[in-house]
Amino acid sequence: MSRRLFAEFLGTLLLLAAVIGSGIMGERLAQGNAAVALLANTMATVFALFVLIETLGPVSGAHFNPVVTLAFGRAAGLERAEQVLYVAAQLAGAAAGAVLANAMFDLPLLQWAAKARGGAGQWLAEVVATAGLVLVIARAGAGRAPMLVAAYIGSAYWFTSSTSFANPAAAFGRMFSDSFAGIAPASITAFIASQAAGGVLGVLLSRALKDA
Amino acid sequence: MSRRLFAEFLGTLLLLAAVIGSGIMGERLAQGNAAVALLANTMATVFALFVLIETLGPVSGAHFNPVVTLAFGRAAGLERAEQVLYVAAQLAGAAAGAVLANAMFDLPLLQWAAKARGGAGQWLAEVVATAGLVLVIARAGAGRAPMLVAAYIGSAYWFTSSTSFANPAAAFGRMFSDSFAGIAPASITAFIASQAAGGVLGVLLSRALKDA
Amino acid sequence: MSRRLFAEFLGTLLLLAAVIGSGIMGERLAQGNAAVALLANTMATVFALFVLIETLGPVSGAHFNPVVTLAFGRAAGLERAEQVLYVAAQLAGAAAGAVLANAMFDLPLLQWAAKARGGAGQWLAEVVATAGLVLVIARAGAGRAPMLVAAYIGSAYWFTSSTSFANPAAAFGRMFSDSFAGIAPASITAFIASQAAGGVLGVLLSRALKDA
Amino acid sequence: MSRRLFAEFLGTLLLLAAVIGSGIMGERLAQGNAAVALLANTMATVFALFVLIETLGPVSGAHFNPVVTLAFGRAAGLERAEQVLYVAAQLAGAAAGAVLANAMFDLPLLQWAAKARGGAGQWLAEVVATAGLVLVIARAGAGRAPMLVAAYIGSAYWFTSSTSFANPAAAFGRMFSDSFAGIAPASITAFIASQAAGGVLGVLLSRALKDA
Repeated sequence: MSRRLFAEFLGTLLLLAAVIGSGIMGERLAQGNAAVALLANTMATVFALFVLIETLGPVSGAHFNPVVTLAFGRAAGLERAEQVLYVAAQLAGAAAGAVLANAMFDLPLLQWAAKARGGAGQWLAEVVATAGLVLVIARAGAGRAPMLVAAYIGSAYWFTSSTSFANPAAAFGRMFSDSFAGIAPASITAFIASQAAGGVLGVLLSRALKDA
Repeated sequence: MSRRLFAEFLGTLLLLAAVIGSGIMGERLAQGNAAVALLANTMATVFALFVLIETLGPVSGAHFNPVVTLAFGRAAGLERAEQVLYVAAQLAGAAAGAVLANAMFDLPLLQWAAKARGGAGQWLAEVVATAGLVLVIARAGAGRAPMLVAAYIGSAYWFTSSTSFANPAAAFGRMFSDSFAGIAPASITAFIASQAAGGVLGVLLSRALKDA
Repeated sequence: MSRRLFAEFLGTLLLLAAVIGSGIMGERLAQGNAAVALLANTMATVFALFVLIETLGPVSGAHFNPVVTLAFGRAAGLERAEQVLYVAAQLAGAAAGAVLANAMFDLPLLQWAAKARGGAGQWLAEVVATAGLVLVIARAGAGRAPMLVAAYIGSAYWFTSSTSFANPAAAFGRMFSDSFAGIAPASITAFIASQAAGGVLGVLLSRALKDA
Repeated sequence: MSRRLFAEFLGTLLLLAAVIGSGIMGERLAQGNAAVALLANTMATVFALFVLIETLGPVSGAHFNPVVTLAFGRAAGLERAEQVLYVAAQLAGAAAGAVLANAMFDLPLLQWAAKARGGAGQWLAEVVATAGLVLVIARAGAGRAPMLVAAYIGSAYWFTSSTSFANPAAAFGRMFSDSFAGIAPASITAFIASQAAGGVLGVLLSRALKDA
């Protein structure tokens, strides 16, 4: 189990470092054109997801996301207590990834994001983004999850108004960097609630597709 | 059949939400640089098509497009009446996808696009775009359609003057969002006629390649 | 043979329509930022190459390029006279593709490009670009050519000062569109000579890698 | 052995020509928007890495990087003396690649980069970037290294503050071009030391993932 938890910690750490680091880099270089910054942020995230899921999947399943652990943990043979450990490893990794990104860009290691996010549109967007993620994972064929999840998030960064967090650990980690990808602590409860609802919707949709 | 129709409805809904949503996001962020907005719109569409065809293909064939249903439906074992149901599910999904995109971006749910599209060049472009799409599907090897269709549309968004709708359901759905990807209701009859002609041309070309 | 020639004609036509059409679109939308236009042009070309080689390769080998036909024709079982027919089909397809791009963008169908290209750096670039292309094809494993050739050209568009024509048929076709991807007729002799030299260099390099 | 050394020389040459050449092209065209230039530089590098590792891997293992040779050489059956020859071929190829890029863009063939790089953040970034690279290679399944290494570097260009050299040969070669991708000679010792530390960390992490 310790090996799997280490993979969840390390993978979520690197994922968040990629998401936050590329956001900082994009914003610094893009001369105020947020679409160019988000294109760079998207590309870095898509590549990171593909690489991390492909290389760490054989160890832990490469969840990096509490919604994924709760939705698919039982089918993957994880007891409830193990699922809780997975989530703890993910949250710790996410925070550590934010600190690492801050360090690489010579920013204060410990900081809070100031960027408020929310409103009906963005909450709906998080429901949709997370439901879609669960649906994609549920329907991915053998060995196809790395490419499909990466491509899905690459699309969802743009078609959802929230830029698709779709992951409570990502929301948690992004609180710790006051940069392009950040989210103010006050905004994350509603985001996580929306993601939870999206996770349930995704499970229902994938069941409907199986049974209809 | 209900399971297949649900897949066509859901897939077309998510495809249109991706096309329209990423258009809105791109336009909002790109500071007036339409090439940057279209790059984002292209990337989101390519990723969405790949994911949707790969995950829903095993259920319904992942047509999401009346031209595809009419051109390949018989070979796929769909009766004429079933093809009509497919098309109905696609049109309903397309409209619902536009409404979902509007909702996620806090726009009025029900609206008409004002952007007129057309002229000889764009009508020719829709013929070419749709013929190419049918040709690609006809020649795609086993399991290669998701990647090939996605890549084809990614190219056609740029090399056709119409940005390659190539899909009557997409044209229909895009009427319901007055944004980057929208099309005025008055413009869609000619677009759909061009797509129908392109579908026929595509079938003829793929036969010529087989028999010549 | 007629089927193979038709595939070479159609493939080169669509390739040039993609190269030239996406150049026109990119230039129109990019507000003078040529890097953004070239990014779009690159993406459209990469996707088009991948799709065309994958779908037409089983018919004709998907050369679309006289250097490829001359370098690999004998190994592919093409007599010298058949190679000449391949080249003729490629040149005709390239010119037709330029005319089609002009038509889709409501430009005069028949026109000459005014953009002069050349100088020692660009000629060297065409040698390098073409040698690399031949080397990639020579070393591509079974079924890998579509992805490898597309990726190679995507890189070479940027790392060569000529934006990597690497194809006499492409140079020929691009004469017929006075747009982003165009090349003045006076410039093409030196380009084609450089490509021929590059083709020879590529064959020598791939032999050296085999025998060394 | 000479064949393998030739592959290492040629591959590193083409990799550096791609990295430096696309940097020059990006900077020339991007109207000062460094994010657009880096997007182009990233895309060209990703495609080049994928193609070079896939086509030259069967000959030499496609290291193109002294850290990779030292970390994986023994497992690949390379004696210590052979590893030294590999590194020599890589350094010679890297310098030659810079000269080739300079030549293609009509710049003085021999030149020193003036761009100073460094500071705690960038040194940490090189440790992280190189550790990640070693980890990815250690965990890549059969035949997956070309895609995984290319994707990893595509992400790391953006999420590390140093734009992820992660390769002493690349640092060495980039000294010889005073352009977008260049690095001043005075800056490279600390970069290489950071990469060495990253290499060790990567080996430790991949062992921990195996044994934990």
